[in-house]
This record gives sequence, C-alpha cells and structure tokens, in this order.
Amino acid sequence: MALDQRKAPLFEALVAHERLRAGSYHVPGHKARARWGDERAAAYYGSLLGLDVTELSDTDDLHHPEGPLLEAQELAAECFGAEETRFLVGGSTSGNLAMIVGLCRPGDLVIAQRNVHKSIVHGLMLAGVRAVLLSPEIDRLSRLATVPTERQVTGALERYPEAKALILSSPNYYGMCTDLSPIVAAAHRRGVPVLIDEAHGAHFGFHPEFPPSALRAGADLVVQSTHKMLGAMTMGAMLHMQGERIPRAAIRQALSMVQSSSPSFPIMASLDLARWQLYSNKERTFSSAINAADRVTEALEKTSFRALGYGKYASPGIAYDPLKLVLFDETANLTGFALRDELEDLRCVAEMADEKYVVLALGPGTTLEDGQRLLEALLEIADRGREKRMATKHIREHMFESGENLSIPEPVLFDREEYEAVAVRLEYSVGCQAAEWVIPYPPGIPVLFPGETITEGIVDRLKRWRHEGARIQGARDPQLREIQVRRDKDG
Amino acid sequence: MALDQRKAPLFEALVAHERLRAGSYHVPGHKARARWGDERAAAYYGSLLGLDVTELSDTDDLHHPEGPLLEAQELAAECFGAEETRFLVGGSTSGNLAMIVGLCRPGDLVIAQRNVHKSIVHGLMLAGVRAVLLSPEIDRLSRLATVPTERQVTGALERYPEAKALILSSPNYYGMCTDLSPIVAAAHRRGVPVLIDEAHGAHFGFHPEFPPSALRAGADLVVQSTHKMLGAMTMGAMLHMQGERIPRAAIRQALSMVQSSSPSFPIMASLDLARWQLYSNKERTFSSAINAADRVTEALEKTSFRALGYGKYASPGIAYDPLKLVLFDETANLTGFALRDELEDLRCVAEMADEKYVVLALGPGTTLEDGQRLLEALLEIADRGREKRMATKHIREHMFESGENLSIPEPVLFDREEYEAVAVRLEYSVGCQAAEWVIPYPPGIPVLFPGETITEGIVDRLKRWRHEGARIQGARDPQLREIQVRRDKDG
Repeated sequence: MALDQRKAPLFEALVAHERLRAGSYHVPGHKARARWGDERAAAYYGSLLGLDVTELSDTDDLHHPEGPLLEAQELAAECFGAEETRFLVGGSTSGNLAMIVGLCRPGDLVIAQRNVHKSIVHGLMLAGVRAVLLSPEIDRLSRLATVPTERQVTGALERYPEAKALILSSPNYYGMCTDLSPIVAAAHRRGVPVLIDEAHGAHFGFHPEFPPSALRAGADLVVQSTHKMLGAMTMGAMLHMQGERIPRAAIRQALSMVQSSSPSFPIMASLDLARWQLYSNKERTFSSAINAADRVTEALEKTSFRALGYGKYASPGIAYDPLKLVLFDETANLTGFALRDELEDLRCVAEMADEKYVVLALGPGTTLEDGQRLLEALLEIADRGREKRMATKHIREHMFESGENLSIPEPVLFDREEYEAVAVRLEYSVGCQAAEWVIPYPPGIPVLFPGETITEGIVDRLKRWRHEGARIQGARDPQLREIQVRRDKDG
Repeated sequence: MALDQRKAPLFEALVAHERLRAGSYHVPGHKARARWGDERAAAYYGSLLGLDVTELSDTDDLHHPEGPLLEAQELAAECFGAEETRFLVGGSTSGNLAMIVGLCRPGDLVIAQRNVHKSIVHGLMLAGVRAVLLSPEIDRLSRLATVPTERQVTGALERYPEAKALILSSPNYYGMCTDLSPIVAAAHRRGVPVLIDEAHGAHFGFHPEFPPSALRAGADLVVQSTHKMLGAMTMGAMLHMQGERIPRAAIRQALSMVQSSSPSFPIMASLDLARWQLYSNKERTFSSAINAADRVTEALEKTSFRALGYGKYASPGIAYDPLKLVLFDETANLTGFALRDELEDLRCVAEMADEKYVVLALGPGTTLEDGQRLLEALLEIADRGREKRMATKHIREHMFESGENLSIPEPVLFDREEYEAVAVRLEYSVGCQAAEWVIPYPPGIPVLFPGETITEGIVDRLKRWRHEGARIQGARDPQLREIQVRRDKDG
C-alpha cells in the first residue's frame, strides 16, 4: 500500500467517527459530553472528548492495528526512518520497559550506561537482568555526562561477549550528544543489538541544525518522547525498530503487557498529527523556535549569562540541541536554581535546573515572541544583579572527575527480591553489596546501585566527594559516614 | 487538613496556571498551541492543550504528590471510601500490574480466578508468581461467569495457607457480580489480603440501584477504570487502598515503575472532575442514564429482545449493573454479533458482543434521548425480523458447564522464560505442561494457561467441548486434535 504522508489517517478516522454523531453505548462513560457540571471544564475538555473513544470498527486497536492506526504507524516509520514504528501511550517509560522486558530473559546480561533514566532501571528490574554499568564520558567544559566512549564500550563487549544488548541514553537532558555511529558499529560487529533511549531527541534529523537521529546511527530499537520535543500530547511517544537483530514479536508482546488495554485515542491521534506536521512543514516546523533561541543567544553578551554549545562553551565532538537553551551565570553569582526562580518570577517557566544550569526547552509551539520575552527577562535579571550583589554562592567546580572512565565493573543483578539491610561505616564496606542508591551531585551519576559490590576505588571516590562537599542523594546518611549494605544470608 | 469536596484542586491548579499565560520553556513541545497546521485539529485540541503541562512548581507530581494532586487524591479516597487513593494514567492495567508486582516476589503463590483480565495475567508473569487458578461460578441462567464461590475460595485457602493474596475480578464485563463480603472475610480470617479488579465498577455504591463497591466488601486493594463507567478520560483510573495488610510503600513504588514519569495532567484532572461530579450531583449523576435504560427495558416486550437482570432473566444472588444493558434475542434468530451489527447500521454503537449477547454501556454522559434512540433502533430491528426470517443460527446452549467447580488445581508458574513447544495429540497430552492458551467459547474461560499441567479431567472436558462444536481460541489447532506442550528439558 503506497503511503500518503499528506494524510493523518488516525486523526481523520476519529474525526469521521465523531461526525457520524452515532449514539455511544460504549465506554468511556462521558459519551463525548463534558457533563461534569462545570462550565470551565466543559470549555477546556468539550471539543476533545469527541475524539476520546474506544476500540471500534472504524477506529482500530493499538494492540492489533489493522486500519487507520496501522497506517499512521507506517507513515511514522517512513517519516522517522524506521522499518517499524509503534505508537506509545505511556511515554518513553513504556517503550523503555518493553524494549528490555521484550528482549531479555531473567539472568541475561546487558551493557548499559550508568546514568540512564529510571525507567531503564525499572525495566532491568522487571526483566531480572544483570547489567554492566559503564560510566559515561564527562565533558570537561560543562562537567555534564553524555555516553560511554567507544573504547569503554568495546572493552565491555570484549569482556562480556554474552551481552544481549547495549543500552544507551542520548541525547542527555541538556541536549548534548556524541556521534553514536562508531559505538553502534562496534556492538553490531559483535552481534549485539543497540537500544537507545532518545526521549529528548524525537526531533533529531528534522532540521540541518539538529544532531542526527539514533536510527540514522544504526540503532536497532529507539524510544522517543514525541511529546517532549515535538507536537504530541504528554505521554505520546514512539518506539522505532530496524534491522534483523531484535525479535520484534517479543517487543510487541511486551508493549501489550506494559500499556493499557484501553489506550487514549486523543494521545495516539496527536502522534499522527505530530508526524503529519513534520511532513507538511519540514524544517519550518522549527523555524520560530530556532529564531527564538537565536534572539536570546545573540544578546547574551549584554549579560553575564552564557549558553552551553555557543562560543567558547562548545566542546568539539559534542553536538548541541539548539532547542535546549542551557544557561548559566559566568560570574557564578546565581546558581541554576536561583536563575530558574528569577525567571519564574518573571513568568518564564523553565524545564529544569541544577546547581549550575537552567534548562529551557523549546519546541514546535515556540514563537519568536517567546524568545523576546525570555531575553527581556534575562536582561532584567542581569540588571538586578548589577544593582545588588547576590550573596555569593560560588558554584563549586569540585567535579573532580571528567573525561572517560575505562574501568569495566562487574555486573549488577537487578531484581525485585527484598534484602535485609544493615548500616556499616563507609570505610568498612568494601566487598559488601550496596543496599541503597548513592548518587553524588554533581554530577548526578549513580556511584552505587542497590546490589552493586562496593570496591576500594568506590570508597575512595566517595570519600573525596564527601570531602569536596558534594551532596549525596539516595543514601540514608547524607554525610555518608555510614552506608546501607545487604546483609549476608549467613548473617 | 479538612477536605473540601466542593473543590477540584488539581483541575483548578491547572486552570490557574494556564491563566497566568506564563511563557512555556518546558515540555511538552506544543507549548499549549495547536500549531500542527490543521484547523480542525486546532479546533479539537486547542482548548485542552493549555492544561497539558508537565510537573511544575504549581502543578505537582504524580510520583511525589505534595500539593493539588495530593489533595485531589485525598478527596477521591474520601469520596470512594478508601483510606488512600492513587490516580492512575495507564488505565486499570497499570493498577493491576502494580498491585501484583508491588505485593509479590518471584515464586510467591497467589489464588486467583481463572477468568481474569489479561493485565492481571501480565502482572503475574512480570512478578514471576505461582497462581492457583480457580474456576469462576457460572450462572445457570445466563451461562456467564462471575467469581469463584466462597466454598471454592475457602478450599483453596486451606490447601494453600502460604497464599500471598486472593485476586478477583468483579463485576464481570456484563455488569454482573455477587456478594464479595463473605469471600473477603474468609480470606482475611486467614490473613490473606484481597485484590480486586473492579475495572467495570467505578460507579458502584453511588446510586441505590448500583451494587455495592468492592471497598465496601472489605477488599484491601481495588482498581477501577474511572474512564469506563464514570466521567474521566480514557486511561484515567484509580487504585484504592484500605487496611493494614498491604505494604503501601511497595505498591507506590510499583506504580512508579509501571507508569510514565511524564503523566498526562488532562487525564489526571479528569479524574478530579469525575470525583467532583459525584460529590456535586450524587445520585443525579446517573439519573438520565438510568432513565435511558428504563426507557429501553420497559418497552422490550414489544420485541423478542430481553435484557439480563430483568424479569425472569435475573438470577437470585447476582446483582446487575443497571448501566450495562445486556440484550439478547429470546428467539435466537439473531446472534449477539448480528444484533450489534444491526444496531451499528442504525448508528447505535455498542460496547461489545458475543455469540449470544450484545452489551451496551451507559454512563454519566448518557441522555434520555440516547435511550429513546436505542429503543427505536431495537424496534426497527425487531420489525425487520418479522418481515424476513433471518437465517436461523441457533445459539447453541451447549455450555454444558455451570454452577461451581470445587476442584482446586495445582499452581501454575507464571514467568517469562522461553520454552520449546511440541505438538502432541490431545489424547496423549496428560501430564504435559501446556505451551499455549486453550479457551473454549463459550464461555471464554481459559481451560489451560501456558505452563499449566494437563490432567485427564481437562482432556475429557476439552473432548466434550470439541464434540459440542465450541470454538477454541488461543490454540494453534482450532480443532484441538493436537495441543502444544512444553518440551521436557530431557527432550
């Protein structure tokens, strides 16, 4: 069947059904009428409820698509460069869970980067796999982590030839990524499929200024949050598949396990519309957002704020997503948190902040006026800074680790057993299995996962972090004098 | 904090945020603007996109609720009669998965009814538990299955005192249920918590004509699809908790594993609105729907159609949901499928059909006109019947099983291992483990789950079903001359 990208078949099927004005004697209970008894609610919801239907003869079924939904998915696959695409209604979470649960059996071994999204960790736990957790490379300029290097990955692949998959997460939350092609090629040479959480990169490849997509790099399974950086409703995501290394039936089965048997048609139709928007407008989908970003970055010199990826703050070998404005105060007067709060006071709501950076996420809905508004807010904040000196809270550049970490750790078993925990002094914990997470900030990369064996090297690093005053998250003792470890079965 | 049921705090928080007209530099990418480039899409989605935001300082977080979402959940708990209520954005599926994965460790044993929703089966698989699968009682009048009897459950509890939970599903898809209180009490006397999939019964207890809720019967965990029978958007559901038997932290942790880290605020706010509607309108929420049902059932005598639960088609000991119209042709001229198709031709779209019945689901959005419209369609179909005699397709009353089945089977291990399968003739399969589903229709209750040991009794029953001409679903050989069994590790 020839695909016609000018159509949005799922959206159109829902519209056609709604226009029939047939009597609804099927779920959902609202019957396309916003009758809660509140006029505002009716005003907000009324028009979309008509598309909020269930699996009917003319609407199709996410778990057995044969009609307009099948067509919409095929159009998306063609548009995004996949062989097969599945719409997701549970966000990248559902895609990440399904990738791992579908591919892996209990006890399987996978290689993954240490700084993965928690949904990847949950997938590892549900699947009961063992994971070799590689430290991501840390960019010297920004002190932010991307992915492990090709050398790290190759080393791990050679040491663990039984690996069932390589799991990476790219771009990072800050829109930074490296070239994945050599890493994918290295895995493929050894017959290992590559699974990529590209939650923050659904737009990659659709504008010359964007980094290339993970599919273009050859990844076998790619999960994207179409709602984050493209035009879908929240929880709308996609799982893309290519190549012969993955048993796709197992992935589809896993998707039917982790997703609702009553998926949301408005969300699925918004995926269709997001794809259609990309086809119809091509690069122009992002013109106003990129212009908005330029409006800001071209004027930052008037302030002490700088943006990662621009000027001297761009690392060679790293590609930066222009839709992510990652700002920081060069004079270190304002932490990222403080800058975020000041922006919010001026009614510019950011995506995220940490001690150094504030992350502003743009998208297809961003207008040039948004850029102007943000710039004016930054200028005002900068003015205030000149008037009164903020309590100096230096951003400690104590991130003593950067670059690549070539050590290849032992696998950690991810399961859902319950273990007794006991507190031991950090100095005496070598050889024990951690019973809690230990995540120093910065850089926010877990040094210990529950179940991971504590080595002397880890204890030394933790002592240094403690000395440098890093905040430790996850651990019961934030000072890390004591650490929770699993009690031996022998007591 | 005193709860004020007159408020819809989550909905109001989203409205307040939207009215700020703050600049959105956070996900989602649509920035509350329907800019796909299609005017119809903008007309359908435009107003609700303003509520489709992410976790912000004034909107709260599903996985760590502290503000308006916490308040909305507490209001729901009070309204539904729970101690704690969690909003779900992945339908009852997410609640069912989380209940089981949260409570059970691999190898645990549970007692469940055989005819559970597939999401319960998936939960059992993900948790790696062993399940004792009790046959549900089959109502003699309707030949439809409800839940196991108290005697069956008691027998299983005595035989398996190590059971971690009793898992039931009530009401059934047809809106039929029995009194759960004695069963819950029997389980509680033995310290076994009761988990109930009440997907089709979120409205129970809110009108004198409705059956009582599972929470009222004392269940410890109850999952409801608020979208099916109340006024929430599709995928909006709730998990209710009460009592001290369940480790609630484990359930909350499991919810955070199986649900998106970016849940949909429009869906969550619709849960808040559905609860608010129940408080504001009490029984009147359902007046027009019940009137619509009465309009139909009071006039059915003019036709050959009858409704389960009315007149001589009401079984003592069974409560019927008045919002489920379960119609069938008393003369057996029309199958349920045919009646559903005829209704759809007359633009009345039913919820579901099987060989005998068509199920029409009403809800808070149903109007009296809907009832009139349905009645007119039924009258017209009845008229056509008198004019031409349909090809007589007798609904075979060959459901030779009814009543209760007191046999207590061996546990079946639910896991995700891959097993080799080999086909053997049915007669020679005694003692083997099934490698496929075997589900005769009617009544649509699995006789064999994958991994279940095939007994002589099962083989005899399957032969009888085959003789009676029942359709067998799930099995590779629909005639069931051969059955797929797991190959012994010995070969």
